[in-house]
Amino acid sequence: MVKDGTLSVEKALENLKHLPYEDITFAKIDHHRHLRQGIPEVIYAKDKRIDEVRGIAESMYRSSRRFLITKASRDVYEGIGFKEAVFYSASGIIAVGGESKKKKLGVLVISAGTSDIPIAEEAAVTASVLGSGVEIEYDVGVAGLHRILVKRERLAAARVIVVVAGMEGALPSVVGGLTDKPIIAVPTSTGYGTSLGGFTALFAMLNSCVPGIAVMNIDNGFGAGCLAHKINIQ
Amino acid sequence: MVKDGTLSVEKALENLKHLPYEDITFAKIDHHRHLRQGIPEVIYAKDKRIDEVRGIAESMYRSSRRFLITKASRDVYEGIGFKEAVFYSASGIIAVGGESKKKKLGVLVISAGTSDIPIAEEAAVTASVLGSGVEIEYDVGVAGLHRILVKRERLAAARVIVVVAGMEGALPSVVGGLTDKPIIAVPTSTGYGTSLGGFTALFAMLNSCVPGIAVMNIDNGFGAGCLAHKINIQ
Amino acid sequence: MVKDGTLSVEKALENLKHLPYEDITFAKIDHHRHLRQGIPEVIYAKDKRIDEVRGIAESMYRSSRRFLITKASRDVYEGIGFKEAVFYSASGIIAVGGESKKKKLGVLVISAGTSDIPIAEEAAVTASVLGSGVEIEYDVGVAGLHRILVKRERLAAARVIVVVAGMEGALPSVVGGLTDKPIIAVPTSTGYGTSLGGFTALFAMLNSCVPGIAVMNIDNGFGAGCLAHKINIQ
Amino acid sequence: MVKDGTLSVEKALENLKHLPYEDITFAKIDHHRHLRQGIPEVIYAKDKRIDEVRGIAESMYRSSRRFLITKASRDVYEGIGFKEAVFYSASGIIAVGGESKKKKLGVLVISAGTSDIPIAEEAAVTASVLGSGVEIEYDVGVAGLHRILVKRERLAAARVIVVVAGMEGALPSVVGGLTDKPIIAVPTSTGYGTSLGGFTALFAMLNSCVPGIAVMNIDNGFGAGCLAHKINIQ
Amino acid sequence: MVKDGTLSVEKALENLKHLPYEDITFAKIDHHRHLRQGIPEVIYAKDKRIDEVRGIAESMYRSSRRFLITKASRDVYEGIGFKEAVFYSASGIIAVGGESKKKKLGVLVISAGTSDIPIAEEAAVTASVLGSGVEIEYDVGVAGLHRILVKRERLAAARVIVVVAGMEGALPSVVGGLTDKPIIAVPTSTGYGTSLGGFTALFAMLNSCVPGIAVMNIDNGFGAGCLAHKINIQ
Amino acid sequence: MVKDGTLSVEKALENLKHLPYEDITFAKIDHHRHLRQGIPEVIYAKDKRIDEVRGIAESMYRSSRRFLITKASRDVYEGIGFKEAVFYSASGIIAVGGESKKKKLGVLVISAGTSDIPIAEEAAVTASVLGSGVEIEYDVGVAGLHRILVKRERLAAARVIVVVAGMEGALPSVVGGLTDKPIIAVPTSTGYGTSLGGFTALFAMLNSCVPGIAVMNIDNGFGAGCLAHKINIQ
Amino acid sequence: MVKDGTLSVEKALENLKHLPYEDITFAKIDHHRHLRQGIPEVIYAKDKRIDEVRGIAESMYRSSRRFLITKASRDVYEGIGFKEAVFYSASGIIAVGGESKKKKLGVLVISAGTSDIPIAEEAAVTASVLGSGVEIEYDVGVAGLHRILVKRERLAAARVIVVVAGMEGALPSVVGGLTDKPIIAVPTSTGYGTSLGGFTALFAMLNSCVPGIAVMNIDNGFGAGCLAHKINIQ
Amino acid sequence: MVKDGTLSVEKALENLKHLPYEDITFAKIDHHRHLRQGIPEVIYAKDKRIDEVRGIAESMYRSSRRFLITKASRDVYEGIGFKEAVFYSASGIIAVGGESKKKKLGVLVISAGTSDIPIAEEAAVTASVLGSGVEIEYDVGVAGLHRILVKRERLAAARVIVVVAGMEGALPSVVGGLTDKPIIAVPTSTGYGTSLGGFTALFAMLNSCVPGIAVMNIDNGFGAGCLAHKINIQ
Repeated sequence: MVKDGTLSVEKALENLKHLPYEDITFAKIDHHRHLRQGIPEVIYAKDKRIDEVRGIAESMYRSSRRFLITKASRDVYEGIGFKEAVFYSASGIIAVGGESKKKKLGVLVISAGTSDIPIAEEAAVTASVLGSGVEIEYDVGVAGLHRILVKRERLAAARVIVVVAGMEGALPSVVGGLTDKPIIAVPTSTGYGTSLGGFTALFAMLNSCVPGIAVMNIDNGFGAGCLAHKINIQ
Repeated sequence: MVKDGTLSVEKALENLKHLPYEDITFAKIDHHRHLRQGIPEVIYAKDKRIDEVRGIAESMYRSSRRFLITKASRDVYEGIGFKEAVFYSASGIIAVGGESKKKKLGVLVISAGTSDIPIAEEAAVTASVLGSGVEIEYDVGVAGLHRILVKRERLAAARVIVVVAGMEGALPSVVGGLTDKPIIAVPTSTGYGTSLGGFTALFAMLNSCVPGIAVMNIDNGFGAGCLAHKINIQ
Repeated sequence: MVKDGTLSVEKALENLKHLPYEDITFAKIDHHRHLRQGIPEVIYAKDKRIDEVRGIAESMYRSSRRFLITKASRDVYEGIGFKEAVFYSASGIIAVGGESKKKKLGVLVISAGTSDIPIAEEAAVTASVLGSGVEIEYDVGVAGLHRILVKRERLAAARVIVVVAGMEGALPSVVGGLTDKPIIAVPTSTGYGTSLGGFTALFAMLNSCVPGIAVMNIDNGFGAGCLAHKINIQ
Repeated sequence: MVKDGTLSVEKALENLKHLPYEDITFAKIDHHRHLRQGIPEVIYAKDKRIDEVRGIAESMYRSSRRFLITKASRDVYEGIGFKEAVFYSASGIIAVGGESKKKKLGVLVISAGTSDIPIAEEAAVTASVLGSGVEIEYDVGVAGLHRILVKRERLAAARVIVVVAGMEGALPSVVGGLTDKPIIAVPTSTGYGTSLGGFTALFAMLNSCVPGIAVMNIDNGFGAGCLAHKINIQ
Repeated sequence: MVKDGTLSVEKALENLKHLPYEDITFAKIDHHRHLRQGIPEVIYAKDKRIDEVRGIAESMYRSSRRFLITKASRDVYEGIGFKEAVFYSASGIIAVGGESKKKKLGVLVISAGTSDIPIAEEAAVTASVLGSGVEIEYDVGVAGLHRILVKRERLAAARVIVVVAGMEGALPSVVGGLTDKPIIAVPTSTGYGTSLGGFTALFAMLNSCVPGIAVMNIDNGFGAGCLAHKINIQ
Repeated sequence: MVKDGTLSVEKALENLKHLPYEDITFAKIDHHRHLRQGIPEVIYAKDKRIDEVRGIAESMYRSSRRFLITKASRDVYEGIGFKEAVFYSASGIIAVGGESKKKKLGVLVISAGTSDIPIAEEAAVTASVLGSGVEIEYDVGVAGLHRILVKRERLAAARVIVVVAGMEGALPSVVGGLTDKPIIAVPTSTGYGTSLGGFTALFAMLNSCVPGIAVMNIDNGFGAGCLAHKINIQ
Repeated sequence: MVKDGTLSVEKALENLKHLPYEDITFAKIDHHRHLRQGIPEVIYAKDKRIDEVRGIAESMYRSSRRFLITKASRDVYEGIGFKEAVFYSASGIIAVGGESKKKKLGVLVISAGTSDIPIAEEAAVTASVLGSGVEIEYDVGVAGLHRILVKRERLAAARVIVVVAGMEGALPSVVGGLTDKPIIAVPTSTGYGTSLGGFTALFAMLNSCVPGIAVMNIDNGFGAGCLAHKINIQ
Repeated sequence: MVKDGTLSVEKALENLKHLPYEDITFAKIDHHRHLRQGIPEVIYAKDKRIDEVRGIAESMYRSSRRFLITKASRDVYEGIGFKEAVFYSASGIIAVGGESKKKKLGVLVISAGTSDIPIAEEAAVTASVLGSGVEIEYDVGVAGLHRILVKRERLAAARVIVVVAGMEGALPSVVGGLTDKPIIAVPTSTGYGTSLGGFTALFAMLNSCVPGIAVMNIDNGFGAGCLAHKINIQ
């Protein structure tokens, strides 16, 4: 019952050599990623030198007139020298070319506390740059339940909800009890001691008594924005 | 700028008393959860006695003619005494009433190894019982890449993909590199030593270089099935 | 500025020799603990042999006509052979002599899920045996918020509230947002994977955005009952 | 046996919209929290920018003429520009309006070492600002037992005792063996290596052989002060 | 500078469909793995049912007249019903077809204590079945240094050395100080308490002051045998 | 400045071949260990088969007429078939030949709770078999301080003190505050939840505010007995 | 069998009030600690402000003309302004009054690598200040075994040996195999990644196959010096 | 069956004194390490002062005209003052004397992302300095599989492959599925949150479904280079 092989393994893989990417020595930029994955290649600035970031950004810009940089400082923003780039200072996102004509409404981003705003903004900007219309509600944590309960029309109007919370990470469970929409939970590293740099919120979210909550890495607002957009455009 | 309050807090909360649930002493069954959350209340059998499981199942059956029990042993299945219940032995799911007439196609469940099948089945059965049409591919781990590469039509045809993997948890990244569909990753507790009972796979999935992968708790096939269904029916 | 010493250290400590305890070889029973700490010495059965438990129980009974054994199996209950002992099977408590005439009302014990009942019962029985009147609400977790919201009179009527929860441990934060009474949170070991045997609930409770929640060790219903009683009788 | 519902869920929750809070864009300030929880909303300065702290403080001051800021640096104190604010430099608390006329005596705060003073001060100032009379004993760790043993009248006179300790966290057990009052234990992050930033003290306190000790998050003197005050005023 | 693509991505991947594997429903057996990776596919018995193990073993046997099963119990050995299979009881290996005519000498397997023998045997049998000649020295731990020092000819004669140790995992450092051959270190789960199920030995080996030691997963004698053979046949 | 070498490395190590040990295939028994380290080689029974234990015991007995087996079950005791062997059932020690004529007094073994007795007995038996006179005090934990305070003559009379405790592990700090003798602390795995199988007690002991406490692995009464004896005979 | 009490508990403890200590507001200095524990109270500088360190140092100096400060920076040394103080810059120890006339020989301090010298120096200076004669061997790690093997006379001449090592922490096991003297192992935080800031060395030392090694907290050279001195003067 | 001993242990070890090393007070330099281990002693700069690094470097240079320094900053490079030294700035390696005439080809170094280049360079430079010819491919992570698939000739041409990756660490499994050469996996500390400073990649690599991958400590490019060279020259 072994499948017969009309083409050798070597041949098949040989063909893969001709896929398009650009080699700029310290990076191999995958210009077709948007076609393949629905999300263009994005530059994570944190562990890179400014000249590396600039080099990759320029390559992307040449290819598609757009790029997205995450976890960037103002130094990076100034160092890359793109006039048309927009810098979102709370989240550290730099965007070029994301101002699409028509955005599909449907993403709601909620954050539990003021300290969670940078990550919430990262999710909101990402989804928006990718093409989704995004609404935002900040500081609706569970210690004052009525602040979220009064927003029920917004929950009902959304197609997908991103919930950003640190400390005990309880907000996704509470929101999840009030809606039938897909929920994406993002733990943040706010808090101290047993907040464990966000692990407590992460594990609380993974253990939510509301089934089916999608969980992201700690402080990964970018990932949440990507997934929210993918779900929103279905 | 403080909002005025035409109804006191006490009054508003007083009204909430009249929401429907059934109190059977050791449980308060939330019969409206399906309306509110899109997923009916489900019985997690692992930490409950058989008589508790049976009591809750009977209450649910009286109310809606359907229920779902997860992480159940054959003893639980036999102990609850429901003739029409179906027992999925690999995953330990017991289902009554999930055979809906028309299912919406779109969920694909993939597992990396033979040992991951129980969790993959849990995800597949859950999504199916909730109303989604589900396709399955088992044993397509990254050590033999061609096994997943040859399934690219299936990846393209799906609306949402559940990827179940233990050990190093690399499969979601590889699948995520090949598709633009939302991916739900489920780490499993297979492996030994540094697999850390599934934490290595969990953390690997949360750190995927493919952005926006939705991650579930370890061995939480049920949650993956719920989320897959919610995304599929959007 | 050094304080002068009219009695030598040796002399002062010499005097301590005459404090009352009973030495039964493998244990030194502290019969005055109730006077000193407000809680009598209690037998933790889990790491002891049945004959050790029986020996300590008999010594306590001779001295004060009462004792409390925690985390006991039915084997222990039968093995110690006390006719008047009451065995609480969910929590594994064995009590003799706790039926005080008049109990002071004021302790409310709440649990999030059916699986948390054993620990909730341990807290409730302990507080009751020590002399507090205890009310109970089981299965009021955050996935169905209205189940706890409708109990607001009970929250208002209590002097101290014990909240027992596993998994993401969110219930104490929600309850804490609704009341000004002292709250004692008990994490339980229910759940799997990232619930980490109760550590996720523990850390979530320690990180509650509601300030001043008293947290107990995982599954430590007994400690919660002791503290609830101490606060209640103030 | 399902409870009938004279008011729909939607209606009940609709009513909650009218609860009072103030929306200042990056924060939703819950001015009724004091009524509901017994503790006013408090500003945690650590993860916030100075202008955010100032904005929230001004909103609170307009509403109630008082506020409390925790974990603040001298920069925050100077940046918010409130003349009547008091800055407690060891603990980093900024308080306005806490000088109540009559305080209820009863809170005793004890610390094990000199390095634990900042957290002990945080607990003491918090309880005092909330309205409790507070006494303090610093540097009475277990290596010199007589330093705590000589303070037994103070232990006896208190209604509730806060014990602050780092390293091995043994002091709450020793104090707990000498008194029948509720004890609130606060682990601190002092120490190095296996002190694990306070986790060793935290876990030691959660495992105390003295039953019913209330444990707080690492370095959470503020929470201890809140709970101590709540117990003290019962 | 983008590479031109004479063949589309879809076309290239299409070709991969024709690689040989056998689909037996619950497994997709990769019969060409030996060609591609130098090691045939191997059956890890621990998380599989006996009928699954037998099914995979039969498929492999039909294809190549040989297979290797690891971490198997005697029940598995008896359950698969292969007369020519050899069962190594200490390590739980079942082998068919490994008795190659000529083995290339060069692999030396050393274990620190008697308790480490099962893992050492796993490494030795694996390398032998793959085609290497293997020598063995058991129980030469560092508490009696002369036991290893006297074996220096053996160290000198080997081409690659596998060192198996639990507890503090010091043996690879000591052996590594005496030889210029590649060393493969295998931590074992022997020990208790702070041995952490082998993590202490694992981390000690990863931190060896002798540079370039290859480290395997805890108890992974099989992996060590594979790598030793690959290095030996270079 | 390099030291000149009158003998080659190879030569020097060659000489080491002639050190005495006995090779019984699965073990290399180091009969001179007692001379070299002051402690004879000892058999750790936990990860060994009974026939392996018996083989090693017989070899030792032939060589020196004495042996010590730790962490042994009654099955091991019966399986080795030595009539003159003494079995200590609480600690699981089997000893032959330890009844030395004259023991040097000076070792005091203290345990915090009844559950810690097995490990305390292991320490006491070990030190005694090696030649020290041992005194014992069980169940003197810190919740009843007077139980240890009244034993101050015993503390003063000892030359070295072994303190065995689980849970919060506070006893060594308290004892250390009362004496100038070397203290050996042994954490035990008693407790649950955050006792972390003894790690909390271990870390608490390593962080003792009393300087210079010697700490052993969790449940390692044997090691404590060895060290106590070595210090006692100085 | 209860002991009769001729003196009440309250009376006995009352007497303890008269033990000598000095209260300088932020510290209670225990001037009799040297008598009671054999080691004077010592100032741990790391978590204290310079004025606090100076205040305690001055109080100690007034009382006994000597003090010891650990983990101090040069700023602390200059800030306390004691001319006769000696500053050991590698270890950060400041000592006054330790130059005792006659020191008892017997302590040997060994370190594995150059990076471990600060902690080794801390141990050596501490033991010396307390009154022991100390010899030192640096950089004798296990990768070059002959460096320690050639020092066997020194091992034989010592009464107690302190072994300081980071990374894999193997040196205590190797030294322990060569001597019958008590060994005190100090793990250091040198290394990176899986050295886990010294935990790997700590756990390796606690798991040494050589029985009875005394282990200290990570980087706790001071504790090692105290214990070494206590053993040396027996 | 005990081996007879013609030379005493003391005598044998006495001979070891004459092995060559150089004692420069704070270090004992092992000039024969290259002969014994195949790798010369190397200076790890991270935990050493510049004058210590210079001292050791000068000693090595005097002895062999070559040295290698790892994890060095530019300050170290300038501080040691060797004109002929080469400084590799990405990896922080300083090398003197590694430009051997003829290098043996065969080492291929692959990195997953741009952030992993420093560690990949460390491996490549190390292997090259030791005498191997090294080829490099950067930025071929699994999110764009074709970037590695097109390099299959390079994989086939290599004798040993070093794979450097952070985050989820999946690249070694994918590469391992495509080749029969020994693979050395190096986890890096790139990433955030659940990447755990490289532990997630480390554990993923240790759990690879491809058997026999050699794993290094986190960020240990140097070790990988050593092992790659040892395997390459076999």
